[in-house]
Amino acid sequence: MKLIKTKVMLLALMILIIPVELQSKEHPKLILTKAGVEAIRKSLGQVPLFDASVAITKQQVDSEITLGIDTPIPTDYSGGYTHERHKKNFVIAQKAGALYQILEDDKYAEYVRDMLLQYEAMYRDLPVHPKPRSYARGKLFWQCLNDSNWLLYMAQAYDSIYTFLSEEERQRLNQNLFRPFADFISIGNPQFYNRIHNHSTWGNAAVGMIGLVMDDRELIDRALYGIEDDGLEVGLKDDDGGFIKVEGQKTGFLANLENPFSPDGYYTEGPYYQRYAMYPFLIFSLAMDNVKPELGVFQHKDSVLLKAVSALLNLSDAEGNFFPLNDAQKGMSYFSASLVTAVDIAYHYGAQDPQLLSVAEKQGQVLLNQAGLSVAMGIRDEKVQRFVKKSINVSDGMDGTEGGVAVLRYGDEDLSVVFKYAAQGLSHGHYDKLSFSLYDRGDEVIQDYGLVRFVNIGQKGGGNYLKENQSWAKQTIAHNTITQNQKSHFKGKYELGSQHHSELYFFDASRDNVQVASATETNAYPGTKLHRTMAIIKPDNFAKPLVLDIVKVTSKTKNQYDLPFYFMGQVLKTNFDYEAPSSLLPMGDSDGYQHLYLEGTGKPTSDSTQLNWLIEGKFYTLTAATKANDELLFTRVGATDPEFNLRRDAALMFRRKDVSDTLFVSVIEPHGRYSPVSELSVNPNSNISSVEVVLDSDAYTAIVIENLEKQSSIFIVGNRDASVSHRHQLTIGGKQYSWQGPYYLGEESMRGLR
Amino acid sequence: MKLIKTKVMLLALMILIIPVELQSKEHPKLILTKAGVEAIRKSLGQVPLFDASVAITKQQVDSEITLGIDTPIPTDYSGGYTHERHKKNFVIAQKAGALYQILEDDKYAEYVRDMLLQYEAMYRDLPVHPKPRSYARGKLFWQCLNDSNWLLYMAQAYDSIYTFLSEEERQRLNQNLFRPFADFISIGNPQFYNRIHNHSTWGNAAVGMIGLVMDDRELIDRALYGIEDDGLEVGLKDDDGGFIKVEGQKTGFLANLENPFSPDGYYTEGPYYQRYAMYPFLIFSLAMDNVKPELGVFQHKDSVLLKAVSALLNLSDAEGNFFPLNDAQKGMSYFSASLVTAVDIAYHYGAQDPQLLSVAEKQGQVLLNQAGLSVAMGIRDEKVQRFVKKSINVSDGMDGTEGGVAVLRYGDEDLSVVFKYAAQGLSHGHYDKLSFSLYDRGDEVIQDYGLVRFVNIGQKGGGNYLKENQSWAKQTIAHNTITQNQKSHFKGKYELGSQHHSELYFFDASRDNVQVASATETNAYPGTKLHRTMAIIKPDNFAKPLVLDIVKVTSKTKNQYDLPFYFMGQVLKTNFDYEAPSSLLPMGDSDGYQHLYLEGTGKPTSDSTQLNWLIEGKFYTLTAATKANDELLFTRVGATDPEFNLRRDAALMFRRKDVSDTLFVSVIEPHGRYSPVSELSVNPNSNISSVEVVLDSDAYTAIVIENLEKQSSIFIVGNRDASVSHRHQLTIGGKQYSWQGPYYLGEESMRGLR
Repeated sequence: MKLIKTKVMLLALMILIIPVELQSKEHPKLILTKAGVEAIRKSLGQVPLFDASVAITKQQVDSEITLGIDTPIPTDYSGGYTHERHKKNFVIAQKAGALYQILEDDKYAEYVRDMLLQYEAMYRDLPVHPKPRSYARGKLFWQCLNDSNWLLYMAQAYDSIYTFLSEEERQRLNQNLFRPFADFISIGNPQFYNRIHNHSTWGNAAVGMIGLVMDDRELIDRALYGIEDDGLEVGLKDDDGGFIKVEGQKTGFLANLENPFSPDGYYTEGPYYQRYAMYPFLIFSLAMDNVKPELGVFQHKDSVLLKAVSALLNLSDAEGNFFPLNDAQKGMSYFSASLVTAVDIAYHYGAQDPQLLSVAEKQGQVLLNQAGLSVAMGIRDEKVQRFVKKSINVSDGMDGTEGGVAVLRYGDEDLSVVFKYAAQGLSHGHYDKLSFSLYDRGDEVIQDYGLVRFVNIGQKGGGNYLKENQSWAKQTIAHNTITQNQKSHFKGKYELGSQHHSELYFFDASRDNVQVASATETNAYPGTKLHRTMAIIKPDNFAKPLVLDIVKVTSKTKNQYDLPFYFMGQVLKTNFDYEAPSSLLPMGDSDGYQHLYLEGTGKPTSDSTQLNWLIEGKFYTLTAATKANDELLFTRVGATDPEFNLRRDAALMFRRKDVSDTLFVSVIEPHGRYSPVSELSVNPNSNISSVEVVLDSDAYTAIVIENLEKQSSIFIVGNRDASVSHRHQLTIGGKQYSWQGPYYLGEESMRGLR
Repeated sequence: MKLIKTKVMLLALMILIIPVELQSKEHPKLILTKAGVEAIRKSLGQVPLFDASVAITKQQVDSEITLGIDTPIPTDYSGGYTHERHKKNFVIAQKAGALYQILEDDKYAEYVRDMLLQYEAMYRDLPVHPKPRSYARGKLFWQCLNDSNWLLYMAQAYDSIYTFLSEEERQRLNQNLFRPFADFISIGNPQFYNRIHNHSTWGNAAVGMIGLVMDDRELIDRALYGIEDDGLEVGLKDDDGGFIKVEGQKTGFLANLENPFSPDGYYTEGPYYQRYAMYPFLIFSLAMDNVKPELGVFQHKDSVLLKAVSALLNLSDAEGNFFPLNDAQKGMSYFSASLVTAVDIAYHYGAQDPQLLSVAEKQGQVLLNQAGLSVAMGIRDEKVQRFVKKSINVSDGMDGTEGGVAVLRYGDEDLSVVFKYAAQGLSHGHYDKLSFSLYDRGDEVIQDYGLVRFVNIGQKGGGNYLKENQSWAKQTIAHNTITQNQKSHFKGKYELGSQHHSELYFFDASRDNVQVASATETNAYPGTKLHRTMAIIKPDNFAKPLVLDIVKVTSKTKNQYDLPFYFMGQVLKTNFDYEAPSSLLPMGDSDGYQHLYLEGTGKPTSDSTQLNWLIEGKFYTLTAATKANDELLFTRVGATDPEFNLRRDAALMFRRKDVSDTLFVSVIEPHGRYSPVSELSVNPNSNISSVEVVLDSDAYTAIVIENLEKQSSIFIVGNRDASVSHRHQLTIGGKQYSWQGPYYLGEESMRGLR
């Protein structure tokens, strides 16, 4: 390898000798290409959404040009002025470069040139950033990650004005700014650059992009294949607890592309980070495709990048907000700029799926390049089709063998169950095996808390992760899944969690009136097996579909199990009595319990315990099959939170003590609606009279849901064999059931059954 | 009077003798008229919004006709099936009647006829409603109020199909249904019918409407003038604590029209109830105008009804939601059906104000009568103008002498301060003299809690007021105003509160960059005078306007003063230290304090105490001039709330103990914005370095606000004389100020001042 490296360096040197005139003809070549620019110029004034995007960009850039260029000495964390200013600079420079190409107005090129030369003058003597919090401090920013953002964008700006610059200017920029910049974030910070992580992807892509502009083979190779001898210690970790160096693991862009994406395009950290990581993946791949199509980066791993765009879009609610799996700030959506990039590229370089056009139409803007033009033309030519999100099941892990995420959807996203049975998700993972969240179109009904961070809001810990992210958000009890003996899955230890993943038992979305996902987890608590089956079922006698949730626990030891439901909204009614304490105390001192107040303690007064609540003008009822000794706890987030970093959100928690094997069954029922304008209350009460476990054995679990008119549905799941071909026969209460495949749903009068 | 009444009865008897053929020609005559119907029929297909309204109504009514008529035996409170069914019946019947007139399709008349005959058959033997909670139980509903709703709508339905019915059918309905119905809600329930209250307005209007249809002079007179000898005891109260019988007070529709509306059209209970009360006022007035224009009901009290529509629209936020003054369910807005009525009638029978058309356009529907047609035509003919809400000051009280409500607005409703210095507001009033709330367009920044009631949601106390409405929502501490010694204004006693009102000191909205409202209250706490001045000021050196709040307290005794700010959203930063308790305890045991948890206790570390928070992607900072001994308390609603009737909302409370005279000054500063999609944080920190009281005497209070660039603004208010003509001269820190009128605002460098 040493030999190869030397060869590459020689090659790089040779290339530098090639006369500049010859090279310069090739610019722009990364994202914009000469042919693309020509097509764009010809289309100006004829493609409304593209013209609008040009106009908006022009307005933005022109107003920045008026304000003048500022490249302050870096001093702040995110949220601070110098951070935000440098961030804005690279965003605007990239846009100004594109405008120069499209509009052929020199003022844009001059603006980029002047800014770059200002950076060049500054960078030569710039020390490492003064803020110490990162494991890899940048120079312009407090972390190399942001420096990489800068370089990835600036490479595009540079490419756009390359031919406008004099040879002398180019030499200055290459030697004093770009090459040292690229070296600093790579060989200067291998702990950042040379690993499998979204940070490295940014670093790799940034180095690769500037390498392509400069035609610097060494940088391009360093981007694609990483640094061979990085001098890092195996087992080294970053400040999020993620592994930096893993024995024998390949690094560089291609390895990063290989590793975190499953064959289905699911990114193991979850959609929030996938959205962030997509940009460098797509941009550098596109640049490689334009400059070196022979490497086939887009086609890598069966076109996984294009699949990833589709997976990402499918992991959003009806309003386009990404489901907050693992660390994720709520509100991030496909309206994000990186998704404009993703959608436009996936459309143009993929199969021109007309459904993508409807997302682009909602985004209301396109990229200022060939992909954006192509999308805008598709919209102009009325090719738009509605983007339909169906139930999906995406695998996790490089080979798709490390669990996954299932989304069960009913109707036009009227109801979406997000069921997570994935791997740890690297350093941004949460300890929440077999957890779920529930959406009613764009509204959270049963929420996942998300992260504890106010991204880029400097007042809150410099805009970075807050300590409650670790002490609360990552802990198991913060999620809608089982916590055993008040301890998080894998003892909340990253090393343990990273070794394991849940297993899919089965997924079936082939029928309209019943869709099921079922998975098991045996490592979160050694000696205990968790098996959760979640189904959306639509019995004929209900106006809306129901969510059936079956959690089967088998354990070698007797334990306490807590199963919370973080319902959103206001309690209307319960059918159980509870005591409300006169003062509120934290529920524990570790594993997240220290952040929960106990607002009420009750016992079931019926075998079917009900909670009825209201959120966003819609009524819901949870009906759970409970046992007399169950504890019913109303909890609220917010204890041990002296800086008000947490939201005061509520849950109903089911607690069962001193049992080994047990079964938690509940049904979540959306019903009716309320308007504060008409003040009409329609169907405000549950239509369920009981949820009953009629059989629970090693082999089968059978649940009967009865409505107020005494009509029943029975759902049976086989616990031993999920094969589609297996035929089952079973007698319950004298009635015989026979079916094929892992589950049975029947609707009938069940009166004779008990 | 006895004589007149006898005459009227004779007249009524005479009219009954007039041949029916002659009378029937006059129908419809109440809301629809023969001429109006002809105009409508001619316009069908030519006025888009009217046609759309007909189409939507037709769809609704047709689907109800398909379902069939159901008039169940009444058993429920609001939210229950029988309640909601009877409610829907009268709404649909009214619409079906209108459709019969417009579309001339007999099926609509038959539907109304059959429904009315079903009611007739049922009503004869119907006992009083079984639910006991109301002070005036109805027959179809649990309270006469809802029975009155029924009659008011059904009178319109009856009028629409009057000529379709046979004489025999009309006799049956008049004798067995309508006349007994009208008698039951009036002479059968004088405690409901014969008072000054929105309940009575409904009763009066309902009786009057059916009287007009039947041409029953006795009922018409009873509607207009009430019942002379009601046998009620003076001082009697209803179950909300409101007075039923007041010595010497007139009753009936005209008295109700006279009394609760101020000359500015403000309704003393507040906009939420005004919206509800407007419907019977407007509908019966319109009917009177059509049938008996010579009585000039619309012109009554200088056209107060039309002014009331304008006042009501102006008491809404940028999204049309009414400010929740007194008991008010949040979310009620000008999209309510009664506001469609109000806007259409105010347009057609008022001055055809084209700004009303833009409200109607947002409402997206019009009434199916002449007024609706006129509005729809105005929109079709592109007469629409934007409805511009400016700062307003509306008086309270029958003569406009009982305080009022001021709304200070900046820009396009970018900022709205709602300042209440009104009278008690009858039985729905809160004990919150000189309280305020703050809106940033449609978003609450500093909230008023509203009511504690889930209107028509049966699970929550039958959809009626919950006990926390009294124990929390009405109490002073639930509002952004001063509570003295932890006791509510007027000791929370309705009798006391009803005797008093605050006094306007001055209101000035004549300038763009400073708008001020100032008022005093001397009765809430005998011996203590509260003087609050609220201003929106826009210094040149701030990007957005500021809200300046000055509360001057003078008292004969030493007291504890609490001033909370119920900020919405999440705490980002404070510049003071505070202790967060490990367990939460209620802050008191009465006057609302039992519903507050204490989440933090601090002391100022600066003379300018700051709280910085985030809501709906916007940053705000409150900067208060504090004294070293002030207590800074973070509170949260939710203590002593075993049924989860309250929201868990936060406040920062300023507590000052053991002082007689004192001054609370604070500035609320909107600044910057945040998007969870771009994750950009713009201008997240306060631009204020200090808020300082540079003078506070009996005569003057002067405040200096300094920004981070050491530029200052000074605001001086004269405390003794608010006359516009008064000239003032004052020297502060060696600098001389002279001005005319109640206040001074200056912007200058204040460095030499201290």
